[in-house]
Amino acid sequence: MSFTEYPSKLLEDAVNEFASLPGIGRKTAFRLVMYLLKRDSGEVERFGESIIRLHREIRYCSVCHNISDTGICAICSDEKRDRSVVCVVENIQDVMAIENTRQYRGVYHVLGGIISPVDGIGPSDLRIDTLEEKVKAGGIKEVIFALSTTMEGDTTNFYLFRRLGRYNILLTTLARGVAVGDELEYTDELTLGRAINNRNPYHQ
Amino acid sequence: MSFTEYPSKLLEDAVNEFASLPGIGRKTAFRLVMYLLKRDSGEVERFGESIIRLHREIRYCSVCHNISDTGICAICSDEKRDRSVVCVVENIQDVMAIENTRQYRGVYHVLGGIISPVDGIGPSDLRIDTLEEKVKAGGIKEVIFALSTTMEGDTTNFYLFRRLGRYNILLTTLARGVAVGDELEYTDELTLGRAINNRNPYHQ
Repeated sequence: MSFTEYPSKLLEDAVNEFASLPGIGRKTAFRLVMYLLKRDSGEVERFGESIIRLHREIRYCSVCHNISDTGICAICSDEKRDRSVVCVVENIQDVMAIENTRQYRGVYHVLGGIISPVDGIGPSDLRIDTLEEKVKAGGIKEVIFALSTTMEGDTTNFYLFRRLGRYNILLTTLARGVAVGDELEYTDELTLGRAINNRNPYHQ
Repeated sequence: MSFTEYPSKLLEDAVNEFASLPGIGRKTAFRLVMYLLKRDSGEVERFGESIIRLHREIRYCSVCHNISDTGICAICSDEKRDRSVVCVVENIQDVMAIENTRQYRGVYHVLGGIISPVDGIGPSDLRIDTLEEKVKAGGIKEVIFALSTTMEGDTTNFYLFRRLGRYNILLTTLARGVAVGDELEYTDELTLGRAINNRNPYHQ
């Protein structure tokens, strides 16, 4: 057969790109591409460009490592936030989850992951040094460990406790309102809000 | 609250674009964007560019209106295909579905839709004139109506029969192996292959 699966290389390329996304199979990818073909070319170019710009222009806050369009993110540059309380989270999804509870008025520190020997992620792969530097520099009264209640989260909590325990600050964890084994970003806002209000001193 | 839902406008734009696709909600869109952020920037740029190029550079075959990277598609320019048999389909998904059966050696004519008064699509919105011109020009022995077995497909079949019935050619439809109410592009290859082999003369 001279017929290849797709009548056009451009079409095939676009389908392959969509199919490379998690949870999107070839059939869905094809339907998405066919849908894009039917849209206005202006809309489709805007789509493509938003993806390209995302990677080219996105920046991370130099203070908390949260995603940001500017050098310092909106939370860190907000005068009303309490900079003496730092909430340590795994990623920016978790920042957004906690912000959505509207219960927290401190600032954040985004680790960029959690310690996971299975995935080959050790303490040096995370932004723990900059966290310790911040604490060492003074002005911080409390560090909240707001990591997922998984084995990896517990390991990271323990490691952070060892690193930060020597400084004269309060170390707390989220209240165990968050069900064990749950990913933080999927926890409902009520539970997560209660958990951050009922946070407890960290102990081994 | 000074906090907007997303910490970055670039992020929000990209999420909005993904969420505009059919079957992708805001939560999924956000996860796809976060996944893209973790990938190599080269890969992500390729993704964005494949979407932009798709719309800018894609062409349609001047003979059958199938999607194509060249002026005449691979099927129409294939010397081994029988140009005296034309299979009329709704869209390019249906061309691909029939090609995948590997049962058909004729050529196609892509209507670009089917008559659907509910959606405001009439005969003049479809590529029916060019089909009639092809038939009038001669050399075509048979036109196969391979439309979905829905109300709209039946209406379109009837309309095509009225337009093409005056010419001395065989008009056929797919065998009723395709279940009534089914969309053509989701029919399994075995059924669709049998249906195209057992096609019957069209009668009102």
